[in-house]
Amino acid sequence: MTLITDLAERIHALGHADLMPVAIANAKTVILDTVGCTLAGTHEPVVETMLQTEGLATPGQVSLLGRDTKLDVLCAALINGAASHALDFDDVNIAMGGHPSAPVLPALFAIAESQSVSGMDFMLAFIAGFETETRMARAVNFHHYDLGWHPTATLGVFGAAAASARLLGLDAHQTALALSLSASLASGVKANFGTMTKPYHVGHAARHGLMAAKLAQNGFTASLDVLEAKQGFLNVYNGKGNYQAELITRDWAAPLDIVEPGIGIKLYPCCDSTHATVDALFSLQKEHGFEAGDVESIDTRIHPLRLTHVDRPQLRNSLDAKFSVQYCAARALLDGGLTFGSFDTAAYHDPVALSLMGRVNAAPHDDLSLTRPGNYLTEVDVKLRDGRQLNKRMDRPFGRHADEPAPAELIRAKYDDCAGRVLSADASARLHDAIMALETLTDLSGLRTLWTPSNDMAA
Amino acid sequence: MTLITDLAERIHALGHADLMPVAIANAKTVILDTVGCTLAGTHEPVVETMLQTEGLATPGQVSLLGRDTKLDVLCAALINGAASHALDFDDVNIAMGGHPSAPVLPALFAIAESQSVSGMDFMLAFIAGFETETRMARAVNFHHYDLGWHPTATLGVFGAAAASARLLGLDAHQTALALSLSASLASGVKANFGTMTKPYHVGHAARHGLMAAKLAQNGFTASLDVLEAKQGFLNVYNGKGNYQAELITRDWAAPLDIVEPGIGIKLYPCCDSTHATVDALFSLQKEHGFEAGDVESIDTRIHPLRLTHVDRPQLRNSLDAKFSVQYCAARALLDGGLTFGSFDTAAYHDPVALSLMGRVNAAPHDDLSLTRPGNYLTEVDVKLRDGRQLNKRMDRPFGRHADEPAPAELIRAKYDDCAGRVLSADASARLHDAIMALETLTDLSGLRTLWTPSNDMAA
Repeated sequence: MTLITDLAERIHALGHADLMPVAIANAKTVILDTVGCTLAGTHEPVVETMLQTEGLATPGQVSLLGRDTKLDVLCAALINGAASHALDFDDVNIAMGGHPSAPVLPALFAIAESQSVSGMDFMLAFIAGFETETRMARAVNFHHYDLGWHPTATLGVFGAAAASARLLGLDAHQTALALSLSASLASGVKANFGTMTKPYHVGHAARHGLMAAKLAQNGFTASLDVLEAKQGFLNVYNGKGNYQAELITRDWAAPLDIVEPGIGIKLYPCCDSTHATVDALFSLQKEHGFEAGDVESIDTRIHPLRLTHVDRPQLRNSLDAKFSVQYCAARALLDGGLTFGSFDTAAYHDPVALSLMGRVNAAPHDDLSLTRPGNYLTEVDVKLRDGRQLNKRMDRPFGRHADEPAPAELIRAKYDDCAGRVLSADASARLHDAIMALETLTDLSGLRTLWTPSNDMAA
Repeated sequence: MTLITDLAERIHALGHADLMPVAIANAKTVILDTVGCTLAGTHEPVVETMLQTEGLATPGQVSLLGRDTKLDVLCAALINGAASHALDFDDVNIAMGGHPSAPVLPALFAIAESQSVSGMDFMLAFIAGFETETRMARAVNFHHYDLGWHPTATLGVFGAAAASARLLGLDAHQTALALSLSASLASGVKANFGTMTKPYHVGHAARHGLMAAKLAQNGFTASLDVLEAKQGFLNVYNGKGNYQAELITRDWAAPLDIVEPGIGIKLYPCCDSTHATVDALFSLQKEHGFEAGDVESIDTRIHPLRLTHVDRPQLRNSLDAKFSVQYCAARALLDGGLTFGSFDTAAYHDPVALSLMGRVNAAPHDDLSLTRPGNYLTEVDVKLRDGRQLNKRMDRPFGRHADEPAPAELIRAKYDDCAGRVLSADASARLHDAIMALETLTDLSGLRTLWTPSNDMAA
């Protein structure tokens, strides 16, 4: 037995009975969230550029979410993958230091448009892929992340391969070969962050994980000891001594990672390091009942590693607004939420918002004793005009852990905002309802109908 | 200026005037050799499996060498790339610890079938790609190789991107972006050697280098400091301190690497570690005029790192024959050469060969003072029945360095053997002549005609 044959047998053995209701609920939530992000990202420049490039837009039977375009399976996995991460708004996983769903779902959508697939089989495959990449992450992180690999890509390709193998019906041996081949397909360095290459990484992982499964299904060969071999994935990507191989399968699926620690949803389309401040303000508002006009001043103290990204009291453009905790706090209080529209030119030029953000102060938090993964620690003090002084400390934003899930209404608001960029409210709502009933679907072809704009009569 | 912008400007500035006659002659030799290897490999199982896989065999305008199949540019680069290395018989480069031409030429052939390209421009692009990957190799090897990367793939993708950028006519900035993107496309671990995944790596590099150039041409973005950045290629793939970045451009093209150290040709379709023994025997034969029947015994002493691969006095199958220095020595003496046919079942069951190989002894060489790259040191002693005792010491096989080039007749014999697997002698000879006149061709479309079997009336 090798690490990969052990892993492959577990992937192959996972069954519907292993999916407790919370696993299904969480899977549906991140599938909805990823569909929303993909719809929102489908007209971003990275996608348009890829679609213009010979060999990346081969016509076929698989739809691009939110576009009237059908591509072959591998191209569709690539492009939908890049679209899903184009706005960097898709769900996160702390162990990965990355995004678990975006590299996996585009591969599965491609399969689900090539053959008839039930909603339950789809979710089982997705959860198998999710578990594979997050368990591998436990073994290699955070050394892997800190070294400069983009784990969404370098681990995501294994997730995509595992999920594709499961949905294509590969046996355990073929699944092992797909994973072994994936060790030669993993790439993506963080130095390319901030460019189109970052979302490309995600599509690359989705495409290649799916390709690995299809090649393995056809009899392709690779080395089953490729993880632990001297010149294999763990030593080559992490360096000797910088991983704990046994963590890949320890306590596998008991519980499933999608249950505990659960799913991580980014609720606002702005820099992650602003989110805990916004959530603290919303919590205080809910608890103490005040409005933006009641606010005298806001002080937010943020872990210094994150503060450097978001301490922007002056705005030059929309990107500055997305990376300004002062602006995000003010805009959130004024509107009761943050949407794509919150960062339009008109929004960040609004004198009311500029006045309020002038009363938001940001400083480094001095309590560094707490080093929970992510370093999200944020503490907000609000002075109200009536003299009340309110305080809220957040260890992380809402929606990042099963203990503090994202409020359902904010998940829905985010989805509506995302899907609304390309779909009518009616089609968007019907797509939401279909995904929320995924366990009842005997076939997923209805999803394509809903996310294809030319079918959207109401648009 | 970053490492990549510096490199890209040099690639872009390379001109026809930089190609001295020996550069052109060497380029033609390795192009011929790679075409031969690709023709010989085109029906190997790795190619057949890939061609059966959805998304990897999209019909298009680019031919597969030796097959009546035309695929789109990226698929053709992938499949021709895998075919070129399927037999592990293509040319080598010591600095890379790998194969310089196989990842580059399939990308260029795909371009040359999509647009009109002159022979000189083709060779200029090829030499630019060759120089790029071998110069990067100086910076990262042999740590890169020893760690477990497959440099043919992980450096080859940069070579393919550079060559494609040159042939597509990209400017220096676009070339830099293509190389920057390539840093996120480099993959391939040596633990997958010995499986179909190894030749797949080569196609992967060719396909993705070409894709990077096409994306850059369309305005894709990537980070120009991706080589030297803290979380960039050099630190992530090699580890801090394990590379010398300045070697990438030091003495760039002065002379070109394809001139000095020059090209490396594998002359025989069997394990590399047997070649110096065979060459020593041919040298002694030429010098002293004896035949196989005159031989009493042969003693070959080989660097111990290589001897372990090839000390096989007993044969169970064709693969054993290819890895037996005893058999290779006997067969070479009997036939005056080694071809694919030398390893057929009939050949390695031949009692005359078995008798002669019984008189070939292999032992470790005791002179380890010489640690030239490759550890090829081999010393052969031949006792003849007439009492003569002959000795020949080889530091490496013929054809691996400009100082000891491969004899022209052996290069031709290898090409004929390779091309003869799929083409008639007439088509094979005409293709040879066309490649040997590459600098005179105004368009490369004639090559496709010659390497496509259905055009081969004499076959």
